Amino acid sequence: MATLGLIEYPDASPEVRAVYDDIMATRRVDRVNNFWKALAHDPVTLRRTWESIKQVMAPGALDALTKELVYLAVSASNQCTYCIASHTAAARKAGMTDAMLAELMAVVGMANETNRLASGYQVEIDDRFKTA
Amino acid sequence: MATLGLIEYPDASPEVRAVYDDIMATRRVDRVNNFWKALAHDPVTLRRTWESIKQVMAPGALDALTKELVYLAVSASNQCTYCIASHTAAARKAGMTDAMLAELMAVVGMANETNRLASGYQVEIDDRFKTA
Amino acid sequence: MATLGLIEYPDASPEVRAVYDDIMATRRVDRVNNFWKALAHDPVTLRRTWESIKQVMAPGALDALTKELVYLAVSASNQCTYCIASHTAAARKAGMTDAMLAELMAVVGMANETNRLASGYQVEIDDRFKTA
Amino acid sequence: MATLGLIEYPDASPEVRAVYDDIMATRRVDRVNNFWKALAHDPVTLRRTWESIKQVMAPGALDALTKELVYLAVSASNQCTYCIASHTAAARKAGMTDAMLAELMAVVGMANETNRLASGYQVEIDDRFKTA
Amino acid sequence: MATLGLIEYPDASPEVRAVYDDIMATRRVDRVNNFWKALAHDPVTLRRTWESIKQVMAPGALDALTKELVYLAVSASNQCTYCIASHTAAARKAGMTDAMLAELMAVVGMANETNRLASGYQVEIDDRFKTA
Amino acid sequence: MATLGLIEYPDASPEVRAVYDDIMATRRVDRVNNFWKALAHDPVTLRRTWESIKQVMAPGALDALTKELVYLAVSASNQCTYCIASHTAAARKAGMTDAMLAELMAVVGMANETNRLASGYQVEIDDRFKTA
Repeated sequence: MATLGLIEYPDASPEVRAVYDDIMATRRVDRVNNFWKALAHDPVTLRRTWESIKQVMAPGALDALTKELVYLAVSASNQCTYCIASHTAAARKAGMTDAMLAELMAVVGMANETNRLASGYQVEIDDRFKTA
Repeated sequence: MATLGLIEYPDASPEVRAVYDDIMATRRVDRVNNFWKALAHDPVTLRRTWESIKQVMAPGALDALTKELVYLAVSASNQCTYCIASHTAAARKAGMTDAMLAELMAVVGMANETNRLASGYQVEIDDRFKTA
Repeated sequence: MATLGLIEYPDASPEVRAVYDDIMATRRVDRVNNFWKALAHDPVTLRRTWESIKQVMAPGALDALTKELVYLAVSASNQCTYCIASHTAAARKAGMTDAMLAELMAVVGMANETNRLASGYQVEIDDRFKTA
Repeated sequence: MATLGLIEYPDASPEVRAVYDDIMATRRVDRVNNFWKALAHDPVTLRRTWESIKQVMAPGALDALTKELVYLAVSASNQCTYCIASHTAAARKAGMTDAMLAELMAVVGMANETNRLASGYQVEIDDRFKTA
Repeated sequence: MATLGLIEYPDASPEVRAVYDDIMATRRVDRVNNFWKALAHDPVTLRRTWESIKQVMAPGALDALTKELVYLAVSASNQCTYCIASHTAAARKAGMTDAMLAELMAVVGMANETNRLASGYQVEIDDRFKTA
Repeated sequence: MATLGLIEYPDASPEVRAVYDDIMATRRVDRVNNFWKALAHDPVTLRRTWESIKQVMAPGALDALTKELVYLAVSASNQCTYCIASHTAAARKAGMTDAMLAELMAVVGMANETNRLASGYQVEIDDRFKTA
């Protein structure tokens, strides 16, 4: 279980409940993930992290699905077991199909492969890729 | 410079030229990146890597721009200097605007942050995220 | 279970027991972690690793708690499940409170976020940060 | 140079200048790092990141120096060239001596070593480290 | 369980069975790993990945055992739980003894340690190591 | 340049010179790498790291070349620029040919790709790979 345990809604302080309420309202769900319940031991970090996520994941120049795909891609690349599980669910809710998941992982895999080929061969940056 | 140096077109063997030609034709460009010129010392890996990239990056369930954004996201997350430079260029060519780049990096940053919060707090996976 | 299994004290060779004894004496505990029992299949690595840890973690310019916090921070950043579990315990024994844990993870999270923003934006090093 | 270039103070919008001013006032310096000048192309991310850093790095249960040491430790572990350079400077300003730097890196090195020994040997978590 | 589940042989399409058959024939085994059964939801990626693995892992300038050792070393370094488990088995089948495993992990551990010492101290590359 | 600078032989203390002498004698070279000159600011870490490397890299169940290949593989996977440069040189000195380098990087690339496919698809470990 989480190091400090999980804080459930009935046991939460008013400031933690306020964040939980905003998460559920924003995402239109009736419960919050364990991630938030674990962070709730530190209400300041809970609020900051949630406010940041809310801001960053809102549709803008990139739509919500694309952002969820990128989030899952990074989590898979980083081998974060919890995040892969939770963001697979989130991406699906945002519209990711099985076919999209498969193509996403194919890209993540190739990027991780060529990242190492580039570094392993010590390839120098092409002059035209250098910003000036 | 690259460990084994770069093989330029005039110095390339026919099998390497065939790959270079396909890269240029597929991408509608008139030269290939240093990455391919470095790999060209191993024509088998050159061809396999290019054929894989061509297959993986072709539009499918995900469009070409989304795939380039994911590629750049993974490269930034992995701190691959060469790949960030070359895939920033590739993503822009596929339509990435400055606003998209900024939002992309904001997502990459948050994913890397919360990946560590999840692991650092040892958060257990929510039952409903466990596939069964 | 561990690839090669765990070597318990009664089954250990004299050279392994000598390391176990030193671990228990140095840390004032009455058993050793699974980590050491797994390494015990290679007594040379067991001894070298323990001697290195003993030297590195001893109080010096940095106190023992700070060193444990750094160890846990790196382990969380690296997503090492075993190490997060064992070093959370070690850090607590060295004095880490729940409030310290929360602040530590907040720093680890932000560092991982800004590490990727710096690389993703390809920020060049400020001249004054270049050692000369 | 940075992908989108650096925004210097005279060229900055009022909202960007407000962040720059707060950075300089909080840190008691007369200029901001390239990191912030690169992020300034996205004023929302600039403000959010700065507010987060300001909150996270303020002294609390952990003092400012300890937080800077952890930040540097994570950056070194992640191989973020820019961050290592800038946070070495920040940590020194917060009081890190050469001896502290050396001990810090020794801990970072050992943590990275034993993280891989633990995973490579597939060591199972000790029962007493499992939170319950 | 795997996100999309595992596709067993009796339920597999002809194109998936063809890959399974080739894996079993090439490796002289009578079943395929879960990894392939999970990838089978995307027959194109299944085939491409298998063909790449078959090509890359075939004996050449490096023998099969050395390649398996390197594969396991990278997987341990990356903290990929599944890959460590499956490639420990593969490496043993290729001839890895317990003594080899122990020495392999010792090298992986030291490489991860010194990688961070080199970056943490910001060591510049020796002139004679720069390819020219 | 390195954070604390490089300590050249004529400026080194007797204890540092003793390590430099042993490095040069063991490796049969007439100078030491910048890595050691940077670590020399911390003679205790310098000696411990060198003694560990000397022990770990000595031929045993694995020969010297295999160990150098693994070291380079991990360094490439970790994107450690310095280490890739220095260990490419070391591996060549130990007998690595250009063909071996190419095959090594092909394996490193595929391992990094499939590590992410395994995690991204959340593949469960095959029962027969679980040690018991």
